[in-house]
Amino acid sequence: MVQQSIQTTELRNQLLHSYETTRMMTNKLVEPLETEDYTIQSIPDVSPPKWHMAHTTWFFETFILKEYSESYRSFHEEFDYLFNSYYESVGSFFPRHSRGLLSRPSIDKVRRYRKDIDEEITRLINEADEAILIEIADLIEIGLHHEQQHQELLMTDIKYNFSINPLKPIYRELDSIETAKASPIEWLSFEGGLVETGINEGNGFSFDNERPVHKVWLEPFELASRTVTNGEYLAFIEDGGYKRAEFWLSDGWSTVKNQSWEAPLHWEKKDGEWYNFTLHGLVPVNNEEPVTHISYYEAEAYASWAGKRLPTEAEWEVAVRDQPIEGNFVEDGVYHPVASVKKGEGQLQKAYGDVWEWTKSPYMPYPGNKPLDGALGEYNAKFMSSQMILRGGSCVTSQSHIRPSYRNFFAPDKRWQFTGIRLAGDVE
Amino acid sequence: MVQQSIQTTELRNQLLHSYETTRMMTNKLVEPLETEDYTIQSIPDVSPPKWHMAHTTWFFETFILKEYSESYRSFHEEFDYLFNSYYESVGSFFPRHSRGLLSRPSIDKVRRYRKDIDEEITRLINEADEAILIEIADLIEIGLHHEQQHQELLMTDIKYNFSINPLKPIYRELDSIETAKASPIEWLSFEGGLVETGINEGNGFSFDNERPVHKVWLEPFELASRTVTNGEYLAFIEDGGYKRAEFWLSDGWSTVKNQSWEAPLHWEKKDGEWYNFTLHGLVPVNNEEPVTHISYYEAEAYASWAGKRLPTEAEWEVAVRDQPIEGNFVEDGVYHPVASVKKGEGQLQKAYGDVWEWTKSPYMPYPGNKPLDGALGEYNAKFMSSQMILRGGSCVTSQSHIRPSYRNFFAPDKRWQFTGIRLAGDVE
Amino acid sequence: MVQQSIQTTELRNQLLHSYETTRMMTNKLVEPLETEDYTIQSIPDVSPPKWHMAHTTWFFETFILKEYSESYRSFHEEFDYLFNSYYESVGSFFPRHSRGLLSRPSIDKVRRYRKDIDEEITRLINEADEAILIEIADLIEIGLHHEQQHQELLMTDIKYNFSINPLKPIYRELDSIETAKASPIEWLSFEGGLVETGINEGNGFSFDNERPVHKVWLEPFELASRTVTNGEYLAFIEDGGYKRAEFWLSDGWSTVKNQSWEAPLHWEKKDGEWYNFTLHGLVPVNNEEPVTHISYYEAEAYASWAGKRLPTEAEWEVAVRDQPIEGNFVEDGVYHPVASVKKGEGQLQKAYGDVWEWTKSPYMPYPGNKPLDGALGEYNAKFMSSQMILRGGSCVTSQSHIRPSYRNFFAPDKRWQFTGIRLAGDVE
Amino acid sequence: MVQQSIQTTELRNQLLHSYETTRMMTNKLVEPLETEDYTIQSIPDVSPPKWHMAHTTWFFETFILKEYSESYRSFHEEFDYLFNSYYESVGSFFPRHSRGLLSRPSIDKVRRYRKDIDEEITRLINEADEAILIEIADLIEIGLHHEQQHQELLMTDIKYNFSINPLKPIYRELDSIETAKASPIEWLSFEGGLVETGINEGNGFSFDNERPVHKVWLEPFELASRTVTNGEYLAFIEDGGYKRAEFWLSDGWSTVKNQSWEAPLHWEKKDGEWYNFTLHGLVPVNNEEPVTHISYYEAEAYASWAGKRLPTEAEWEVAVRDQPIEGNFVEDGVYHPVASVKKGEGQLQKAYGDVWEWTKSPYMPYPGNKPLDGALGEYNAKFMSSQMILRGGSCVTSQSHIRPSYRNFFAPDKRWQFTGIRLAGDVE
Repeated sequence: MVQQSIQTTELRNQLLHSYETTRMMTNKLVEPLETEDYTIQSIPDVSPPKWHMAHTTWFFETFILKEYSESYRSFHEEFDYLFNSYYESVGSFFPRHSRGLLSRPSIDKVRRYRKDIDEEITRLINEADEAILIEIADLIEIGLHHEQQHQELLMTDIKYNFSINPLKPIYRELDSIETAKASPIEWLSFEGGLVETGINEGNGFSFDNERPVHKVWLEPFELASRTVTNGEYLAFIEDGGYKRAEFWLSDGWSTVKNQSWEAPLHWEKKDGEWYNFTLHGLVPVNNEEPVTHISYYEAEAYASWAGKRLPTEAEWEVAVRDQPIEGNFVEDGVYHPVASVKKGEGQLQKAYGDVWEWTKSPYMPYPGNKPLDGALGEYNAKFMSSQMILRGGSCVTSQSHIRPSYRNFFAPDKRWQFTGIRLAGDVE
Repeated sequence: MVQQSIQTTELRNQLLHSYETTRMMTNKLVEPLETEDYTIQSIPDVSPPKWHMAHTTWFFETFILKEYSESYRSFHEEFDYLFNSYYESVGSFFPRHSRGLLSRPSIDKVRRYRKDIDEEITRLINEADEAILIEIADLIEIGLHHEQQHQELLMTDIKYNFSINPLKPIYRELDSIETAKASPIEWLSFEGGLVETGINEGNGFSFDNERPVHKVWLEPFELASRTVTNGEYLAFIEDGGYKRAEFWLSDGWSTVKNQSWEAPLHWEKKDGEWYNFTLHGLVPVNNEEPVTHISYYEAEAYASWAGKRLPTEAEWEVAVRDQPIEGNFVEDGVYHPVASVKKGEGQLQKAYGDVWEWTKSPYMPYPGNKPLDGALGEYNAKFMSSQMILRGGSCVTSQSHIRPSYRNFFAPDKRWQFTGIRLAGDVE
Repeated sequence: MVQQSIQTTELRNQLLHSYETTRMMTNKLVEPLETEDYTIQSIPDVSPPKWHMAHTTWFFETFILKEYSESYRSFHEEFDYLFNSYYESVGSFFPRHSRGLLSRPSIDKVRRYRKDIDEEITRLINEADEAILIEIADLIEIGLHHEQQHQELLMTDIKYNFSINPLKPIYRELDSIETAKASPIEWLSFEGGLVETGINEGNGFSFDNERPVHKVWLEPFELASRTVTNGEYLAFIEDGGYKRAEFWLSDGWSTVKNQSWEAPLHWEKKDGEWYNFTLHGLVPVNNEEPVTHISYYEAEAYASWAGKRLPTEAEWEVAVRDQPIEGNFVEDGVYHPVASVKKGEGQLQKAYGDVWEWTKSPYMPYPGNKPLDGALGEYNAKFMSSQMILRGGSCVTSQSHIRPSYRNFFAPDKRWQFTGIRLAGDVE
Repeated sequence: MVQQSIQTTELRNQLLHSYETTRMMTNKLVEPLETEDYTIQSIPDVSPPKWHMAHTTWFFETFILKEYSESYRSFHEEFDYLFNSYYESVGSFFPRHSRGLLSRPSIDKVRRYRKDIDEEITRLINEADEAILIEIADLIEIGLHHEQQHQELLMTDIKYNFSINPLKPIYRELDSIETAKASPIEWLSFEGGLVETGINEGNGFSFDNERPVHKVWLEPFELASRTVTNGEYLAFIEDGGYKRAEFWLSDGWSTVKNQSWEAPLHWEKKDGEWYNFTLHGLVPVNNEEPVTHISYYEAEAYASWAGKRLPTEAEWEVAVRDQPIEGNFVEDGVYHPVASVKKGEGQLQKAYGDVWEWTKSPYMPYPGNKPLDGALGEYNAKFMSSQMILRGGSCVTSQSHIRPSYRNFFAPDKRWQFTGIRLAGDVE
C-alpha cells in the first residue's frame, strides 16, 4: 500500500474531516450542561444525554470496529447491553424506559469511551487498505448521519428534561431577541400529474427508507408559502380548538382528553398570558414565530379548523425539491424557530429548518424498497407502523443532514420534537 | 299525494323489503343465545349482543325518526346516552369499555325497543311524502349497512365472549365437517400502470370513505390465487415465527412479547396438538382452512418470513373487481372459513367471504374525499389514524354488504375479526 | 342404627330446618332480580349474584359431599374451578375480577346446581350415621354462616351493580318512608381495666378468628349512644371535610384525591341537593338516618374532625355484650339503615343491625388463636393483613348471624358495605 | 443576657456539638458517591441522595429558621416546593415518584444550601436568648433524629439504586470478610402479665408515637436468642417456601406471584449458586449472616413454616429493654449485618443493630397518645394505617438514634430496608 491512489487519500481525508466535525458537534452541544443533566430521563420518549453520547459511539464500535478492526478489544463488555438501542439481531438491550435510572457509567467514563472509539476509528481510517476503506466509508457515513439524528434528539430531550423542572433551567441565554414579523401566507399552486419522488443509491447519502425513485400520481394542489405561526394557532385555541371534538381524529380527541391538552407542548398560561418554555428560558409566546411542539393530531385538527389539509409527503417533495437547502439549523445556534419572512414572489419560505412539517402520509415503504441487509436493516424498516412522515428538518437539525427526499417519522401523538404545520389544499 | 308515481311505490316496497330482511337477520343471528349471553363484554373491543341490538336501533331512531317523524316520541330518554356509540356531535355517551356492566335494559326491553322503532320506521316509509321518502331512503340504506356491520361484530363478539369461558359454550353445532383440500397456491400477475380505484356516488351504495374514483400508479405485481392456510401458517410457527424478531415490525414484536402470542387468536395447544375455538366448539386445527384471527402484525411477519409482502388496497381492488361476488358469507350459516378450492386456470379464489384480507395500506382518505355532512361525517373519517385496510369480507359478512371498493379497517394489533392473509409480490 | 337416640333425631331435624331456612333466604333475596342482573360484576370487589349462589353451593359440595358422601358424583367438573373463591389448598380458581365475564352457566343451570346439592345434603343429613352426623353438623353450620355472609354481599353487590347504571334500577319499592328523628347523642362511660374478650369453642357457633377468650387491658373510655347520622356527617362535609388534609390519614388523603371522593358512596348532588342511591331507588338524603357506605378512612377523618376517636374492638365488645341482639336486620326487609331512637336512660342504641361500626383495631389474631385445620383454615386467617375490624352487623345481616364477639373486616378504603361510625373517647 | 447561666452555655455547646456531628455524618456517608449517583431514583420508594441532603436541610430551615430567625431570608423560593416531603400543612410539594427527574439543583448547589443553613443554625444557637434557645433545642433534636432517619434511607436507597445497575457499582470495598459462625438458637422465656411499655416525655428524646407509657397484658411467651440466618432462610426456600400458598397471608401470596419473588431482595442465582448484592459488591450468600431485605409477608411466612410466630412489639420491648444498646451500627462502617455470636447464657443476642426485626404489631397509636401540634404532628401520626412495626435498628442505624421504645414502621410488602426476623412463640 505504499502507492495508494490520490482518490483513496482524498476519501481518507474526507472521512477524517467529516468524522471529526460531526463528533465535535455532539461535544459542543452538551457543553452548557451540568454533570447531573447528563443522567436524567424525564419521560420514556427521551434519553439521558450521556446515553445519546454513548449509544452513537457504540454504533461505530459495533458496526465498524468489531467487524473491521482485528486489533480492537471491547472497551467494556457490558456496554453492548447498555447502549444497544433496539437492534434485536445484535443482542438484548437495557429497557428503554429505564435509561435514566443508571448513574454509572459516569459522564467521565462515557467521555473516555468516546475518546477511545474516536482514536480507534481514526486509526482504522488511516490504516485500512483500500478495499476495506471503501467498505467502511459507507458505514462511517451512516454512523455520522445517525449521530446527527441523535444530536437533534439530544437537544429536544434536554429541552424536555429542563421543562418539567420547577427551576426552569436555561440551556443557553439568547443574545438578542428575534423581532421580525411573519409575512402573510400566500398560496402556491402545483399541477401534480404523474411525478417521481424518492431517491436512488449513488446520488449522495440517503437512508434506505428514501429509496427507490418511484412514480406517484398527484392531483393539482396548493401549498402555503410558510408554516403556521403561534398567532394563527392561538386563534384556533381561542376558537375552542381543544374543546370541540368536530375538528379531531378520534384518537386525537382521546389524547386531548386523557392528556388534558390545551395548547402546544411547552406552553403554559400564567396570569392569563401564554408563555413558552424554550432552550433560552420561559418567554412570552411570540405570535410571529412558527408554532412548534405540536402533534400530528393537533396539526390535523388545526388544518380541519382552517378548512385546509396537510400535504402528502409526495406533494411536499415535489414542491420543495428545487429550493436551496437554507434555513435556521442547529449550526445557527438559535435552537428555536424564528419568524418566516418573504423571500420573493411565489416562493416557498423556510421549507428547510425551523420546524419539521407534518404530512398526512403514514410512514410506509416505497414500492420496490429494500431495507439494508443485516442488523442495519432494523434501522428504519421495522418502524413502518402507526407513524407519520415529517419533512424539512428543524432548528436543531444539521444543515448537512437534511435533503428533499429525507423522511422523518414520529407517532401521531408525539410533540417533543420541533414539529409544525404547513397547510395544503386541493385545487378544483 | 293520492296519485303517487310508480317509482315511489317501488321505492317504498324496496325499502320495506330490505329493512325487514336486514332487521330479521339480526334477530336470526342471536337466536341461539341464552339470556345471560346478551349482557357480557369480555374485553373492551367487543360489545354485549344486546348493545349491538339497541345501538343499531338507536341509529334509525336518531338519524331518521327524530329528524323526519314529527309524531315520534322518544322511546326512553336515557337510551340516547346508553346507545350512542361515538357520535360526539349527537351528545355524550356511556363509556365503551363499561357496556358489559349494565344488566338493564333487559333483553326483553331491548326487543321492545327494536319492535317499537321497526313499527315507526315502517309507518314512516309507508306514509312519508315523496320528497321525504327520497331523503330518508339514503339514510335507511346507511342504517341497514350499519346494521350489517354490527351483525358481523355480533358474531365475532359472541365468539370472543364464549372463547374465554372455561365451559367453552357452542354457538351452533355444525352438521357436517368441511373436508376439502386447499388447492396449491398459484401466482397471478397484473401489469399495474396508471389505474383508477374507488367509487363515485350514484353507482349503488357506498360509504363516504370509498369515494371518489381517483388515479393511482401501480408497478407490476403478483397476487396469490388464494389466502394462506392453517397448514402454511403452522410452518411459520414451527420455524420459530413467534420467537424471531427479524420478521416483525417493532410494534408487532412488542405486542408478541407483551401479549405472549404464540399462535393465532383462538388457537390453543393441548397435549401437543393445536385446537381451534370456533362457533361450533373447540376442534382440531384444520390445515386446509384459511388461517384467520390474525393481526396485521402477524400477517406482515408471515409475509416477511415467506419472502413476500401484503398487497396494497389498490392492487387488491384492481385485481379483484371483475370477479363475481361469491363466497362463504353469513347467509351460508357456516360462520367459519372453509378450504379454498381451485375454480379455474389463472383465477383468484375466494376474493370475497371467508376471511378479510389485510392490505399494507394505512386507512387514509382518498384524494378529493369529502366526509358526509353532520353527525354521519363521524361515521368513518375520524378513524383515519393508525389503522390498516382490509378487503373482501368474511364468513360473517353479508353478501349484500360487500363490494370491490369496500374498505374495512382495524388497528394493526386486533385479531378478533375473521382476518387472514393473501400474499402479493413485486414483478421484476 | 334402627334405634337412634332422640338427640340424634333432634340434631337431624335441627340441621334440616336451619339448612332449609338459610338456603331459602338466598332464594328470597334474589327474587326481585331480572335474569340479566345475575351475571354482572361492576367492580372487582363485587361478585355476580349467580356466582354467590353457586359458590355457597360449591362450599357444601366441596367440604361435605365430596368428603362424606360416597355416592356423590360431581355436578359439573368445571364448577370446582369456577366457584372456588380463594381456597388455594383446594385447587386453582377462576380470576376474581373476571367473574362478570361469564354468561354460562346460566342462572337456570345454577338453580339446578343448588337444587341438586340441596337434595344431596338433605339425603346425607337424613341418612348419615351418628358419628358422621356429628362431624358434618359442624361443617353444615359453617356452611350456613358462610351462606349468610354471602347473602349480605349479595345485597351490597346488587346495590353497587344497580348504582352505576344510568337507569338507576330499583331493587324493591319501599312501602312507607321512615320518618323518625334520631335522638341526641349521649356519652356513656365505661371503666375499662383488665377485661376478657373473645369466645371459646362450645359456646354456640363462632368462627375461628373470634377465639379464644383472652385478657386485654382497657383504660376508661366513653362511647356514643348511637351512630353518626347523615345530618352530622353533612356538617363535616360542609366544613370542608373532604378538602382538608389535616383530618386524614396519609393513605386516606391519597384515596380522597385519587378517587375524587366528596361524600359517602352512593351520594350524589343534583341541583345543589344531596341524593342517596338506595335499594329502593334514588332518594333525598335523610338527615336522621345513620350515615353509611363510608370507608375506615372517612370514619377516622370524621372522628378526628369531631375531636373524638373510633373505639377499639375490645372496647366495643365490652360495652355491647350485655345488650339484646335486636335491631334492623335483613329479615326486616328494609335493606337500609333507619333513624336511631332512644331506648332508655344511659342505653346504647342499635349496637346491632343498621350499619357495621368501624373500629380502630386492625384485624389480627387474638393471643393463642389457632386457625381451623385444612382448607377451612384459609377461611379467615390468611386475611389478617391491612384490614380493619367492624362490629355489630347491618341492615342486610341476618339476626341469627351476629353476636358480641363477631369480627367483620374490610380494607380501610372499602365502602360498598353498609358501614358507619360510632364515636368513642378517652375518659381523663 | 450578659450573664447567661452555665446551663444555657452547656445547652448551646451540646446543641452545637450534636448538630455538627450529625450533619457531618451525612456528608461522610455520601463521600464514596460520584456526582451522577446523587440524582437518580430507581423506584418510587427511594429518593435521590441529593434529595435526602436537601430535605433534611429544608427541615431545619422550615421549622426553625423561618420560625425563629428574624434575619433569615429564604435560600431559594422554590426549595420549599422541591424539598417538602409530605407536610400538607406547610404547602404543596413536588411528586415523590418524580424526584429522580430533576437534575437541578445540582449537588454543588445542594451543598451550598446545606452550608448556608448550617451557618444560620449555628448562628442562631449561638445568639438566641435563653427562652428561644430552650424552644429550639427540642426542634433541633427532632431535626437531628430526622436527619439520622434519612441517613439510614440514604444507605438503603443508594444500595437499591446500585443494585439495578448492570455494572453493579460498589459503594465501598470491604477490607476483611466476616467469618464468624452464628451460634445455635436458644429459646428464652418471659412470663408476661400486666406490663407497661412506651415512654413518657422528659426521659430523653422520643418521638410522639412512642408515648405515653401504657399498660398491656401479655401471656407468657418465648423469644429466639438471635435472628434468623441466611442458612436457615435458605432451608425455607429449598422447602418450597415461595411456592406453597399455605404459609402465606393472602396479600403476601399475591405479592409473591405478582412480583415473582423467589428469595430475599438483592439475592440472585447464578449457575445454581445464590449471590447477595451488598454495599461492598455482589458476594456469595453467607449462611451465617442474619437474613435481611425481607418483607413482613416473608417474615410471617417463614415463621409459619417454622411453626413459630413473630413477636408483638410489646413482647419485644419488654424482653429487650434491659439490654445495653450495643451492636453493629452505621458508625461501625460495615453497612451489612454480621453473624450473631453467643454473648452469655440465656442472653438475647443483637437486639440492636444489624437488622430491623419485624413484629406482628400493626402501627397504631398507643392509648392516650397525642401527636405533636402543628405541622410536626404529620411526622408520624398520619401513617398509622396498613403498616407494621419494626424494632431494634440495623447496621445502617445510628447507635445514638435507637432505644427500647423506638417504633419503626413500613408497609408489609417493603423490603429495601435492612429488615430481618426474630421468632417468638407461645408458652403453654
